Amino acid sequence: MVSRSLRSPRRYALGIDFGTLSARALVVDVDTGEEAASAVHDYRHGSIQERLPGTQDRLPPEFALQDPGDYLESLHGAVPKALKQAGIRGDQILSVGTDFTSCTMLPTRADGTPLCLEPRWRREPHAYAKLWKHHAAQPEADHINAIGQSRAERFMKAYGGRYSSEWFFSKLLETLRHAPAVYAEADRFIEAGDWIVWKLCGQERRGLSAAGFKAMRVYPDSRDGWTYPSRDFFKALHPRLANVVAEKLSTDLLPPGARAGGLTAAMARRLGLREGTPVAVGNIDAHVAVPACGASRPGEMVMILGTSTCHLLVGDQPQWVEGMCGVVQDGVIAGSWGYEAGQAGVGDLFAWYVEHGAPASVQAEARRRKQTVYARLESEAAKLVPGESGLLALDWWNGCRSVLMDSALSGCLLGATLGTRPHEIYRALIEATAFGTRRIIEAFTSQGVRIHRLVGCGGLAQRSALLMQIYSDVTGLPIRVAASEQTCALGAAMHGAVAAGLHKDMTAATRAMARTQGNGYQPNRGRKQVYDRLYAEYVRLHDTFGRDAQSPMKRLRQLRTQALRRESRLQR
Amino acid sequence: MVSRSLRSPRRYALGIDFGTLSARALVVDVDTGEEAASAVHDYRHGSIQERLPGTQDRLPPEFALQDPGDYLESLHGAVPKALKQAGIRGDQILSVGTDFTSCTMLPTRADGTPLCLEPRWRREPHAYAKLWKHHAAQPEADHINAIGQSRAERFMKAYGGRYSSEWFFSKLLETLRHAPAVYAEADRFIEAGDWIVWKLCGQERRGLSAAGFKAMRVYPDSRDGWTYPSRDFFKALHPRLANVVAEKLSTDLLPPGARAGGLTAAMARRLGLREGTPVAVGNIDAHVAVPACGASRPGEMVMILGTSTCHLLVGDQPQWVEGMCGVVQDGVIAGSWGYEAGQAGVGDLFAWYVEHGAPASVQAEARRRKQTVYARLESEAAKLVPGESGLLALDWWNGCRSVLMDSALSGCLLGATLGTRPHEIYRALIEATAFGTRRIIEAFTSQGVRIHRLVGCGGLAQRSALLMQIYSDVTGLPIRVAASEQTCALGAAMHGAVAAGLHKDMTAATRAMARTQGNGYQPNRGRKQVYDRLYAEYVRLHDTFGRDAQSPMKRLRQLRTQALRRESRLQR
Repeated sequence: MVSRSLRSPRRYALGIDFGTLSARALVVDVDTGEEAASAVHDYRHGSIQERLPGTQDRLPPEFALQDPGDYLESLHGAVPKALKQAGIRGDQILSVGTDFTSCTMLPTRADGTPLCLEPRWRREPHAYAKLWKHHAAQPEADHINAIGQSRAERFMKAYGGRYSSEWFFSKLLETLRHAPAVYAEADRFIEAGDWIVWKLCGQERRGLSAAGFKAMRVYPDSRDGWTYPSRDFFKALHPRLANVVAEKLSTDLLPPGARAGGLTAAMARRLGLREGTPVAVGNIDAHVAVPACGASRPGEMVMILGTSTCHLLVGDQPQWVEGMCGVVQDGVIAGSWGYEAGQAGVGDLFAWYVEHGAPASVQAEARRRKQTVYARLESEAAKLVPGESGLLALDWWNGCRSVLMDSALSGCLLGATLGTRPHEIYRALIEATAFGTRRIIEAFTSQGVRIHRLVGCGGLAQRSALLMQIYSDVTGLPIRVAASEQTCALGAAMHGAVAAGLHKDMTAATRAMARTQGNGYQPNRGRKQVYDRLYAEYVRLHDTFGRDAQSPMKRLRQLRTQALRRESRLQR
Repeated sequence: MVSRSLRSPRRYALGIDFGTLSARALVVDVDTGEEAASAVHDYRHGSIQERLPGTQDRLPPEFALQDPGDYLESLHGAVPKALKQAGIRGDQILSVGTDFTSCTMLPTRADGTPLCLEPRWRREPHAYAKLWKHHAAQPEADHINAIGQSRAERFMKAYGGRYSSEWFFSKLLETLRHAPAVYAEADRFIEAGDWIVWKLCGQERRGLSAAGFKAMRVYPDSRDGWTYPSRDFFKALHPRLANVVAEKLSTDLLPPGARAGGLTAAMARRLGLREGTPVAVGNIDAHVAVPACGASRPGEMVMILGTSTCHLLVGDQPQWVEGMCGVVQDGVIAGSWGYEAGQAGVGDLFAWYVEHGAPASVQAEARRRKQTVYARLESEAAKLVPGESGLLALDWWNGCRSVLMDSALSGCLLGATLGTRPHEIYRALIEATAFGTRRIIEAFTSQGVRIHRLVGCGGLAQRSALLMQIYSDVTGLPIRVAASEQTCALGAAMHGAVAAGLHKDMTAATRAMARTQGNGYQPNRGRKQVYDRLYAEYVRLHDTFGRDAQSPMKRLRQLRTQALRRESRLQR
């Protein structure tokens, strides 16, 4: 590591955040955390849910695919633009770090070529990258959970009792079942975050985090080494899966902040950087945000508030927590235990309401006041006191990805009257997500995992003071908010800086590069008391609808599936 | 009765329907039922819910008042207009019948002058007419039910186990408690429907229906005469109420179709009619619709579908049905037992959704296609099959006025996802009201009251084929729809015709004057089967939220009341 005092030119790290709809490149000062410039490039095809690019083939329900060509195009577009805006030369960039949505995975050839980029597979949905929010693999997740439970597989415990339809082997098994030829042709199945690093530095080096949090590589009770499940388990899942790990994955994994390699000459040219610039191993978007929020100590839960929310925290030891998405050693910050949990619909839920629930009158009033519809609803909602609307919602519009880990659950709004107004519903939806977060916090604290502060990041945390205050009042915890508006890209850059040896570890990088905003939020005692009572009702609904196998919510979903099948609207 | 063949000029009856927001006068041919003309006149002040006329005094929540001066103004406006449109002379009108919303009641002087028309009482809310949907008397209804239950009063049984906050003595007790001076000054408390007849023919003649269905005049087990509850009961309710019936009501009551008197000279002049024209006793709007729908036989349930729905049917004998609004001998059709039940929010619920729930995109599309928002939502909703949306709602946006008779219950929507679209919610709301109707039907049939056909009337029945078909599919019953678009005014006219002796009884009047539309609706077996399963879930939610004293819905309402009180937003 070169000491700052010896050099006059500023040192920069590049962080590249591959999000759901775009890639963002951020140029950041390694020593001060100052953000010099950032540039965004949208994916040409976004999230592919209706039709494959260039075809009229309708995709089945719950599909969400991506074209990996878009990742490269956005990379090539965003990085040079960010450099140009920063006004620096490529050789001032001393490191490259990335982060990616997860589990977003794709099948490739042995040389890393995505199958879907070959003309032969262009019309095969399963040859594309399956985006994290691809939800069609629920039957496969159910099957995995049934087999996993009957065999008492360790991953069941590490994943809080359920393996999600969003995760690696649910999606892989879905491909094997519905497109066996894709399975046969694919030499590799790989996280998109590992694939992009492969493209950057020319070698397949996979990250330990995604393997641990999404792909069943869990730590054994005996601590005699981390492993994937056994051949027998995979065989029980499907005969052709027996050797899947050896044949199509990798057991050579690197922890966050490790060096994956150096930029290839071709990629360096393309991006305008120096060949050989150190590249960090790939990582999960939410995870890299943790140090970027300044939270690398136990007791602080980071909430990355976006379309969905990821909850991350680190601890000194592993605990089994209901519905957590995983606990992985070195999984978030090298040297400690990383925990992840999540809420499936947060920003998505508010966006749904604004698009499909806010009436014309609210839109007109927002226009008149030159506000967004969000801001209009919020400023009215902020005038309400807890309990005043008489409304209570369950926040499961996108299923429950936390304690109950059941994507077939759905949203509920209770307490509506003819006097109910849009801003009341909007506030009830915000409160519902806050109750969902509290329920997750209690799942952790009830198992002895300490949480004494929340740290918010992501657009919602920075834009909505009302949302943050409600979260503080509902949970009774103080909240800090990350200063950076690009915590993922910043975290990616921090990982690159550590990988390049510019900081000796993540704690040092955090100290140098991460910031939070002013005073943050403190819970109000009076509002907390009312919310305690509303939360008790939330938990009652949560258990009534979510836990009981005979719940009306579950039957409704079954009836819906049957109705769609009867109408032959299900394609598969 | 004059036989038709002996006279050449056509004979006309006048029906006047006093609705929630306007009065309508209908001129109808007594012998053919042909509707010659009708005219509407809006009430100047509509439903008074925010501020008293001419003041800035804010009304408390749940208030819904009317100015009785508006009734007269609309009467004076509508009748001459209808005559003019019909192109007939006043002396061709041989009878006058009226109907009125109920229980809408007001305090008056001994000469019939409403207290609120005196300057001294102009700013006193309790001096005004309390509209049927005035819901502020819930505490008084609760008190009545507690006393009624502890004393095993007969009216409790006749009213299905609960006395409503909308009814006569709830509203009267509220006046006594909150405005004792009004109570003291009032010589009479009277249904607005009886009051308007008083104005027409100059004498106070009250109807038996409203007394039986709203004001506790129920039949005794021993059949030794119909009575109001005892002095002791009223004294237990409030010491000053002991003699309320003798002092402020009347025990001189007439059955539907009876002659109350003849038009006064002044009123005849004002309306352009002949002095002494026979006027029928006042009646309830929903009740007069029954013969106007051609339904005067047992087994046919009439649904008057408006902002709320009234369900009416006649039977050969009395049965006790949970949550019915009452069973009264001669109460709907003289000579049989009349039953009433109701759903508190139907058209109101759809209007709420269109105003506060349908997004700008739907409004824009409706404008583009030159449709109403209702029609737009319906044409999309009609493409769905039962169960497809995955949604289920409880129709209690305006409380539950049927089986559970609890106005503190509220609406619920279950099963929402990010893919849920407005027309799906709209259909779920229609289905919810259909399930509510089925629940009422089953309350009757489970007690042995036969129902083999539904008859729909009111704007919703005539406008929405989708709604009628869903009702048929959900209930498994065929539905006929009344041909007249003014069933209440037509029914009022039929009552006048019977009162004037133009028809010998209601059966004869029905045969001559009532019609239904073509073929009506038949239930579809396949859809019925899916709805049977959805209905089972509806009943589960209905009981979970509606019957359990610890239900989250009830607690939410308590929390809301407390929140409002804490914020000092409750005025009283």
